[in-house]
Amino acid sequence: MTDASQLPGAMPNAYQPGKGDLEPAELALAERRRRLLGPSYRLFYETPVHLVRGEGVWLYDPAGNAYLDTYNNVASVGHCHPHVVAATARQSAIFSSHTRYLHDGVLSYAEKLLSYFPPELSHVMFTCTGSEANDLAFRIATAHTGGTGFIVTENAYHGVTSAIAAMSPSLGRGVDLGTHVRTIPAPDPLRLPGDLGAAFAAGVQAAIDDLVRRGIKPAALIVDTVFSSDGVFTDPLGFLAPAVAAIRGAGGLFIADEVQPGFGRTGGAMWGFERHGVLPDMVSLGKPMGNGYPVAGLVLQPRVIEAFGAKARYFNTFGGNAVAAATAMAVMEVIENEGLMQNAAKVGAAFRAGLEALATRNPALGPIRAAGLFLGAEIVADGNPLLPDAARTARVVNHMRSARVLISSTGPRGNVLKIRPPLVFSLANVDHFLDRLEKALNA
Amino acid sequence: MTDASQLPGAMPNAYQPGKGDLEPAELALAERRRRLLGPSYRLFYETPVHLVRGEGVWLYDPAGNAYLDTYNNVASVGHCHPHVVAATARQSAIFSSHTRYLHDGVLSYAEKLLSYFPPELSHVMFTCTGSEANDLAFRIATAHTGGTGFIVTENAYHGVTSAIAAMSPSLGRGVDLGTHVRTIPAPDPLRLPGDLGAAFAAGVQAAIDDLVRRGIKPAALIVDTVFSSDGVFTDPLGFLAPAVAAIRGAGGLFIADEVQPGFGRTGGAMWGFERHGVLPDMVSLGKPMGNGYPVAGLVLQPRVIEAFGAKARYFNTFGGNAVAAATAMAVMEVIENEGLMQNAAKVGAAFRAGLEALATRNPALGPIRAAGLFLGAEIVADGNPLLPDAARTARVVNHMRSARVLISSTGPRGNVLKIRPPLVFSLANVDHFLDRLEKALNA
Repeated sequence: MTDASQLPGAMPNAYQPGKGDLEPAELALAERRRRLLGPSYRLFYETPVHLVRGEGVWLYDPAGNAYLDTYNNVASVGHCHPHVVAATARQSAIFSSHTRYLHDGVLSYAEKLLSYFPPELSHVMFTCTGSEANDLAFRIATAHTGGTGFIVTENAYHGVTSAIAAMSPSLGRGVDLGTHVRTIPAPDPLRLPGDLGAAFAAGVQAAIDDLVRRGIKPAALIVDTVFSSDGVFTDPLGFLAPAVAAIRGAGGLFIADEVQPGFGRTGGAMWGFERHGVLPDMVSLGKPMGNGYPVAGLVLQPRVIEAFGAKARYFNTFGGNAVAAATAMAVMEVIENEGLMQNAAKVGAAFRAGLEALATRNPALGPIRAAGLFLGAEIVADGNPLLPDAARTARVVNHMRSARVLISSTGPRGNVLKIRPPLVFSLANVDHFLDRLEKALNA
Repeated sequence: MTDASQLPGAMPNAYQPGKGDLEPAELALAERRRRLLGPSYRLFYETPVHLVRGEGVWLYDPAGNAYLDTYNNVASVGHCHPHVVAATARQSAIFSSHTRYLHDGVLSYAEKLLSYFPPELSHVMFTCTGSEANDLAFRIATAHTGGTGFIVTENAYHGVTSAIAAMSPSLGRGVDLGTHVRTIPAPDPLRLPGDLGAAFAAGVQAAIDDLVRRGIKPAALIVDTVFSSDGVFTDPLGFLAPAVAAIRGAGGLFIADEVQPGFGRTGGAMWGFERHGVLPDMVSLGKPMGNGYPVAGLVLQPRVIEAFGAKARYFNTFGGNAVAAATAMAVMEVIENEGLMQNAAKVGAAFRAGLEALATRNPALGPIRAAGLFLGAEIVADGNPLLPDAARTARVVNHMRSARVLISSTGPRGNVLKIRPPLVFSLANVDHFLDRLEKALNA
C-alpha cells in the first residue's frame, strides 16, 4: 500500500516498464510504443495483454487464447457485433459526410435516442468523444448561468480536454484542478455519516458556499451517475436527489455524466440518472454509444442552450456524420432486439449475488455494490471494510489477467474491483468469472 | 455588404431559416434538425443541399443529381474510397479496442505517419478530432513552457473545445477569446506592408511584447499553415520563418495546425509547414486523416512532452483504436498508391492557372492564391483588390450550388472563395468548375 502507483490519483493497474513477464515479441511492441507514442501512454496490467481479435465477450491473443472480457464497456453490445459492423460498413460505402448538409440519418438517430429520455430533454448535439461532450456542457453551462464554478466528486473523471481535465481529480496531482473547481466527498456509504443523500448534498452545499464566499458563481454540479472512478456508488436509489436540489437552489445546473453508466448498463433503465428520480439539465454520452466507433453526444433541455445558441454556433466535423449515426442506430437496435437492458438487469443481479456469496467465504472481498452490469467490489484487509487493501487488489487483478479474465481496479484508494462487462454477458460467463475470482482471492 | 451574416466572425454561407428555396421534404428535414439538434447547428447555402451518396469527387441528392465536390477536404482521397471503406469494414469485424492493450496496428500506422516528418518530430499521440489535438497541444505547451500566452491570427480557427474556442476568433464575437490570447494580423500580402515575412513576424513580436508587458509568459504561436479561415495565404514560400524565430526567441513553441492543409493537399509535400522550411515543435492533424473516420493526432518533438509526460498520463478511449489505425493506414496507402500528392501539385497548378486566366476576363475575380489543391480566390468590387465584395461572393457561392458545384467562402471579410476538393480531382473536373464559375460570375 506504499507503492507510489497506488497513491490517490495515480492510475491503478498501470504497466511499469521493466517489470512483468512479457514475451520478447510483446516486449518489442511495448518498446515501440514508448518510442513512437511517448511518455504519457499507459498499458494495463503488470504484464500487458496483446490482443488481436474480439467476438462477443471474448478477446483473443495472437496464440488464440481467449480472455473473458469483464471490463470493456465500449464494446457494450459485444465485440465486433455483426449488426453494428454491417451498419458501419454499409454506410461507409454510401455516404459519410457531415451535418452541414441535410441528411436523414442523424435525425432518425436523434429521434431514436431522445425517445429514451424524459420529454424535457429534447435536444441532442453530437461530438466524437465523451470528453468533447463534457467540454461542450461546460461551455453551455457557463453561458447559461453566467457562472464558472463547477463541483465534482473527489476522484471524478470527466475527460481529457484542458477544461475537463481541470475537473477530473482522478488524473492525479500532476494535473492541476481549476481555481473555479471544487471537489466534494464521494457518496460512499462507508465514509459519509447518516443519510447518504443528505450527507452527499451537504458536501455540495459546502462547495457552493465556498465558491460564493470567493465571488465565484456556481455553474454546475457534474457527476458520473454510478461514480465509476470514485469506487462505484449505486445505492440507495434516489440518493442524488437532495444534491440536485442543492445545486439548483444556487442557480446552477445538474449535468449527468452517462459516458460510463449509460445505454442500458444499469439494467433497470437506459440511464443511470433514472435510478435517482432526477431530471438533469444536460446528459453527456460516450463510450458505448457506437460500440467502438467514435461517437458521443450531449442531450439537453432547450432552455439551457438558449444563451449559448444566441451567440455561438457549434460544428464538430465528424460528430453526427452519416456513419456515426448509422452505427449508433445499429447499437440501439441491438440493445432493443436482444433485450440487453433486461439482460443487464438479470445477469447483473446474479453477478451481484454470486459476488456476495463469495464474500461470505472470503473476508477480503466486500462490500459489493452494483447497478445492473456495473459492479464494484472492495478488497479489504482483516475483513474490515474500512481497511482498503490496494496491494492485494492489484494482485487479484493481475492473477485474474493470468487466468485470462480481464478486469481492473478503481477508487481513490485503488482497492475496488471495477467490473463492467459487455452487456451480452451470460450467467455462464458469471460462473466462469466467479470461479477465477475465488482462485485469485485464495492464491 | 451590410448583411449581419457577413460581419467579421460570422459564419459565411450559413442557411437562414425561412429563406432559400427548399422543397417540402427538405424543409421538413431542416425543421426536424432545428427541433432535435437545437439552435447552434448550421447548414450550408441559402438553399441547403440534401445529400445521400458520395463517390470520388461526386455527391448525389435523393433524385440522383450529381454535385461536383470542390469543398470537402475530409473525404480527401475521394468519397467512400473502396480501399478505405474495406479497411474500416475489415478491422471493425476483427478487433476495434483501445491503446491500453498491445496491438501492432497503431504502431505500424505511427511508423508510416512519422516517416513523412523530419526525424526530430518522432512522437505521435492520437485523438479523435483536430480540436482534441489542438487542445492537447495547448496542455503540453503550457506544461513545457510554464507560460499561458497564445498567439493566433485575427480570423483563426483551431477548434471547438473550451480552451481552443478561446483562441479561435473566427467563431465570432459571441465566443470570448481568452485573456491570455493575442490575435495578430494575418499574412495578407494586400494589407501588410513590405516584406511579408518581416511584417508577419512584427505582429508576432508585438503580441509577445504585449503579453510580457502584462506578466503573461508566451507559450506558443499556433497557425494553420495555409491560413484557411483568414483567407488562404500561401506565398511567398518561407514567409513563416521569421515569425517562428520570434516566438522561439521569447521561449515559446511553434505549433503547426495541419488539420486543413495536411496529408498532401498542398502538393509539393505532405505538410503545409514544409513549404516554409520551418521545423514545428508540434503538428496537429485531423480532418483528412481517416477520410471521414474520426481520427486525429498530434505529432511532436520528444523534448516538448517531457514536462507533461512526467506528471500526466493521456488516454483517449477511441483515439488510435485498431479501426482508426487501419483506416488511417489505408488513407496513406491510397495517397501513395494513387500519387495524390503529385496529383494535388499537377491539378492544383492547372486549377490556379485556370482561375488566373478567368480573372483576366473578370475584374471581380482575384487575387488568386493557392498551394496545390487548397485555393483561395477573392471576389472584389470595381476590380480593386482592396474592395472585398462579400455580397457578390455569397451570390457566386450560391449560384455555383444551383449549378451543382459545391464550394464555400472564408476570410474575415467573407469574400474569399474557399476551394478545397478531394485530392482525386482531375483536369476535367477543373474545366467543369471553371465553366460553372464563369457563368456564376457573369450571372
